[in-house]
Amino acid sequence: MAIRKLLLLLKPIDPYPFLQTEGASLIKNPQVLQYLESRCKVHKNAIKFCQEILSKKPVEWKPISRNDLSHPIRDVDMVITVGGDGTLLHASHFIDDSVPVLGVNSDPTQAHEVEELSDQFDASRSTGHLCAATVENFEQVLDDILFGRVVPAKVSRISLKLNSETLLSHALNDILIAQPCPAAVSRFSFKIKNKDGASSPKTVNCRSSGLRICTAAGSTAAMQSAGGFVMPMLSRDLQFMVREPISPGSTASLMHSTFKPDQFMDVNWYSDHGTIYIDGCQVQHSVQLGDTIEISSDAPVLNVFLSHGISQIRSRY
Amino acid sequence: MAIRKLLLLLKPIDPYPFLQTEGASLIKNPQVLQYLESRCKVHKNAIKFCQEILSKKPVEWKPISRNDLSHPIRDVDMVITVGGDGTLLHASHFIDDSVPVLGVNSDPTQAHEVEELSDQFDASRSTGHLCAATVENFEQVLDDILFGRVVPAKVSRISLKLNSETLLSHALNDILIAQPCPAAVSRFSFKIKNKDGASSPKTVNCRSSGLRICTAAGSTAAMQSAGGFVMPMLSRDLQFMVREPISPGSTASLMHSTFKPDQFMDVNWYSDHGTIYIDGCQVQHSVQLGDTIEISSDAPVLNVFLSHGISQIRSRY
Repeated sequence: MAIRKLLLLLKPIDPYPFLQTEGASLIKNPQVLQYLESRCKVHKNAIKFCQEILSKKPVEWKPISRNDLSHPIRDVDMVITVGGDGTLLHASHFIDDSVPVLGVNSDPTQAHEVEELSDQFDASRSTGHLCAATVENFEQVLDDILFGRVVPAKVSRISLKLNSETLLSHALNDILIAQPCPAAVSRFSFKIKNKDGASSPKTVNCRSSGLRICTAAGSTAAMQSAGGFVMPMLSRDLQFMVREPISPGSTASLMHSTFKPDQFMDVNWYSDHGTIYIDGCQVQHSVQLGDTIEISSDAPVLNVFLSHGISQIRSRY
Repeated sequence: MAIRKLLLLLKPIDPYPFLQTEGASLIKNPQVLQYLESRCKVHKNAIKFCQEILSKKPVEWKPISRNDLSHPIRDVDMVITVGGDGTLLHASHFIDDSVPVLGVNSDPTQAHEVEELSDQFDASRSTGHLCAATVENFEQVLDDILFGRVVPAKVSRISLKLNSETLLSHALNDILIAQPCPAAVSRFSFKIKNKDGASSPKTVNCRSSGLRICTAAGSTAAMQSAGGFVMPMLSRDLQFMVREPISPGSTASLMHSTFKPDQFMDVNWYSDHGTIYIDGCQVQHSVQLGDTIEISSDAPVLNVFLSHGISQIRSRY
């Protein structure tokens, strides 16, 4: 299928609104201000650059800010996000498996910069783990796509049912189910069940800081920071971790593992309050005492053009 | 100094208000309801028992609910809390180093019950780590105190300065500094400084799920669940852990350690929002971009009667 109609989804040009308010005065270190202003400039230039390249190609494209997205994206052949993983994550919540997406990391982290300023502040920029392009290779990657030389990878997403009702949002990276107060204890139990109902699983009871579940794509994000392991990008397994379990005792070995696509997790929530966070703080659903949550990889995949490091079949798309 | 005037601080008699509302219908498993109702009953009986014992002793005492506490506790010789560690923690925020406190664990966890119901739900009750008494030994412990046979331990607490202003609240267990959304990334840097200014410490930059710092008393609570170690109860060191650090790289070894009473920690907060949680969700202070937070063990100690397992000097109090 030829790719002719594109949506260009942009991280806001001014990601640090506080810089225009008294916020700027709160920052005592002038180098922090320079770093933030440079981030805005580099991002702005990357948008300009991508638009110039697109204007030379046999495509129609329309730019919008990610903050203006409110409806599922349907009538385009591809979405290009310009920003970091956050912008691609944001876009993924408006895309099913019918529209492929290419991420452009507009402001990649510069290792030397992080090293030089390490004694002052964290000068990291965008990691862009899911972004196949930067301004360096954008035209090459775009041509590969437009001329059918590469196909998108089918990246697994998390599907959720709350009290047996399927939620519209799918998670590309991860979900966290926890009390809304970061310092509160969450009470819940979970079971891993086979879809064919073959076995009767053990109930695992937990008092902890919440339950985190990630996809392969999300295994390098919060899960890895919490001590989880990186999964092959195209794996359809889901990895879970009970966060900071209180006295797990004999169930300690059950606090962190994976489950297969032919399995799902059943959670019973026992705290008064709770929230399901989908891909960070972007999408949230409240839960309450007695709610059941079913978690599986039954969500529609996201078709993502991944960087060449990941094996991609060379066949007609 | 003779102990004659006591304040009896009580965990609310009905800690599960939702049981009186439609909440009860949300709980499908009748054994969960029985467990919750039993907890209320055992707690109520413990209060009645303690009051009967106190009525036989040469003391004046006044009972109040912990929820009715609003001012520092001054004009009493001792506070007795009846509940769990949560009630003692709550009381500690109204007590300086002039009034000793005795905790009575009104509803201790029953190991056999947790084991029997483990495949259904978590039937643990109160841990009571800081509580020296239960109904089993309350009269004996009370007599030991009234007749001066035991003295309270001096338990360290955390002192906080926000932008150089000392906060009134001290932490008996721990503090967590994090974005208010549990799934958000917190950006901050910290340094451990010597009070005598002898050395110029390294700045450690962090992107993570927040910063947790605990006292010795708090080292068996959230810190241990997060992978920290238990400290000797009377240690005046503070233990800190950067929670779920993102790509710590060469600073990985600096993410979890302790600092001495002659040191303090300086934190620079770089996220738009943030909250200091003191001893769980009970006490909270907002922080914003550019704020500085100074953390030390300079707070007034809490004088707590600890269980006999902890060495106590047998000297006149």
